[in-house]
Amino acid sequence: MTDILLRGGRPWRLPAPADLLVRDGVIARVGQGLDADGARVVDVSGQLVLPGLVEAHCHLDKTLYGGAWVPHSADDTLTGRMSNDLGRRAELGVPSVERITALLERMSSFGTTHVRTHTDIDPAVGLRGVEAVGEAAAALSDRVSVRQVAFPQHGLLTNPGTAELLEEALKSGVEAIGGIDPAGIDRDPVRHLDTVFELASRYGAAVDIHLHDGGTLGAWELELIIERTAALGLGGRVTVSHAYALGQIDGAHQDRLAKGLAEAGVAVATAAVYSFPVPPVRKLREAGVTVACGHDGIRDLWGPYGSGDMLERAMHLAYRSTFRADADIELALEAATYGGARALNLPGYGLSVGDQADLVVVPVGGAAEAVVTHPPRSLVMKRGVPLPA
Amino acid sequence: MTDILLRGGRPWRLPAPADLLVRDGVIARVGQGLDADGARVVDVSGQLVLPGLVEAHCHLDKTLYGGAWVPHSADDTLTGRMSNDLGRRAELGVPSVERITALLERMSSFGTTHVRTHTDIDPAVGLRGVEAVGEAAAALSDRVSVRQVAFPQHGLLTNPGTAELLEEALKSGVEAIGGIDPAGIDRDPVRHLDTVFELASRYGAAVDIHLHDGGTLGAWELELIIERTAALGLGGRVTVSHAYALGQIDGAHQDRLAKGLAEAGVAVATAAVYSFPVPPVRKLREAGVTVACGHDGIRDLWGPYGSGDMLERAMHLAYRSTFRADADIELALEAATYGGARALNLPGYGLSVGDQADLVVVPVGGAAEAVVTHPPRSLVMKRGVPLPA
Ligand SMILES: [Zn+2]
Ligand SMILES: [Zn+2]
Repeated sequence: MTDILLRGGRPWRLPAPADLLVRDGVIARVGQGLDADGARVVDVSGQLVLPGLVEAHCHLDKTLYGGAWVPHSADDTLTGRMSNDLGRRAELGVPSVERITALLERMSSFGTTHVRTHTDIDPAVGLRGVEAVGEAAAALSDRVSVRQVAFPQHGLLTNPGTAELLEEALKSGVEAIGGIDPAGIDRDPVRHLDTVFELASRYGAAVDIHLHDGGTLGAWELELIIERTAALGLGGRVTVSHAYALGQIDGAHQDRLAKGLAEAGVAVATAAVYSFPVPPVRKLREAGVTVACGHDGIRDLWGPYGSGDMLERAMHLAYRSTFRADADIELALEAATYGGARALNLPGYGLSVGDQADLVVVPVGGAAEAVVTHPPRSLVMKRGVPLPA
Repeated sequence: MTDILLRGGRPWRLPAPADLLVRDGVIARVGQGLDADGARVVDVSGQLVLPGLVEAHCHLDKTLYGGAWVPHSADDTLTGRMSNDLGRRAELGVPSVERITALLERMSSFGTTHVRTHTDIDPAVGLRGVEAVGEAAAALSDRVSVRQVAFPQHGLLTNPGTAELLEEALKSGVEAIGGIDPAGIDRDPVRHLDTVFELASRYGAAVDIHLHDGGTLGAWELELIIERTAALGLGGRVTVSHAYALGQIDGAHQDRLAKGLAEAGVAVATAAVYSFPVPPVRKLREAGVTVACGHDGIRDLWGPYGSGDMLERAMHLAYRSTFRADADIELALEAATYGGARALNLPGYGLSVGDQADLVVVPVGGAAEAVVTHPPRSLVMKRGVPLPA
């Protein structure tokens, strides 16, 4: 493996430009005027250097990406979208290793080096989604690291046989278990969460729960998740995705929940999609809550949007948060990088000596500009190896 | 001027692919298998052909586009942003013919062929903004048509001398007069609107009023605007921009106002910015209200966002409207094309024989895909002349 010296870039959050020497897949030195010492020198003068972007919430298994445009065919209800998904996925060849591969390649071209994806598991599809994602991810393991969440999209308690399949997925090596609207969809929040957390505890799995339930209902479910995380000692291993309720309750209630999430070690992952409520990112960060960011669905039966570019996604998050100041906009980038890395427990993530050399070079002067303009990347590197453009 | 035959494209809303013959700046023929008849043939097989995109609401005079990144420096209040604007524009050289030119060139490169821009007028800046926009627009008149709104950004009644300057602008040929939050900012909605409509009526000007005032207050101001439009016979010449209130009131109230707007001939222009309320586009269109679309500020002292790409802006409008189905997403494109053209009273706009040949070719199969993916344009044509890429 060739050593590489990135010369003259601006590593994010360093006070001044600095060179990065990459050796054996890790960042070996950071400093000004480093000796090339036989390394290949890449001039990135004046450009922003970021750690690899982290896609913390997507649904690779569902994607139609890479194929022809498929007009959206569901009605405007959640149940309509769920039955549309179930009804049409076979017809459209979902899950498809080819399409998952096309999407992962695209994500990687934008500098995403780590992905957490929620893979549908239900008696009809079984573990075929898990296998398809696993196959695509294995073939692209030199570009992007993919971790799956075993996801009961179509209900857990309400869909008999699903819990057993989730357990089978965990046995087969899937690293996290998901849940979905324990009240609104699965109709029994206590038993739903107990099932998910029991499996997580038994298999040493992480937890990542879809929570669209809004207002005081969703807020109360967050309490249930906080309680179980604390009781089982799963702090740092639990994420709540979407958490619309956090964007709907009043400020004092937000404060209490933010404190509870921070103390329990529960992260929040947001996609800032459509017009749905966005959790209060600044408040959560100030309280010490980990905030991660992802696309949610990309070009699938749930909706046609999504580019796979995590800088663009961070723009959506900043935009919907009405962030105008650079420091605020950088909170969205934090969610798409370090925040995602913490939520996913990624080891050796960052721009320090010893960190894995997953790097993205963006031809802009600063982080806020990178989010707002999200221009094509100058360079993407995975474990010290530059990827083909 | 060379005749051009666009071969094999898919003109939007035609049931089948068709050639377009462009002669003397207008669309001379539309049909299948047209004889080139000496025209230069451009193969656009399978690509979408749109009429020129219409930017119906922006602020060219304020832009910092084309210069280095300027970190946003206002606090999070409207008055904070207004005083930040007043305080820093001179220091930053706003208005700048150079920057306005850079932005117009960028907009044009994305296929925008018509622009309505609100130009600040107040005793401090006088008509310098109007002149700067006029100078840039004149130099680029072969690429993009620009119409200005004389805009009392910093108050009309509350800022003595502004009304006289607005009148001076209309005398000098500015085609429309603006207003801003007649209640919330200018503190006297009746006298504010009477002043604006009296000037419009006297000078034959169009009207385009910024209305951020929300809820029942904004809804009541919409009634005032409807009443004055009807009384003065200005139907088809009046636009309300933003109209957040329409996105906040209940459904029955929306229905009543939509009917009133349609009957009076008052258009709504929306930018779908940040997390601010978006008017109910589908409902407005069903009621027969003209809906237009624009960016609002692009990279200025009010905020750092905005690309200048009206297909991307239409994506924001569709996304915030939670439009997933193709027919819904096309409503956003309608706002960025025909809707804007109606709001701006553009003559000869469209894809029919005899229409001005302002055309955009997008390398996608359909309109919804164009909005969602907004890829680089294959070709932009103004009055029958292809623009340099
Ligand atoms: Zn999801
Ligand atoms: Zn505006």
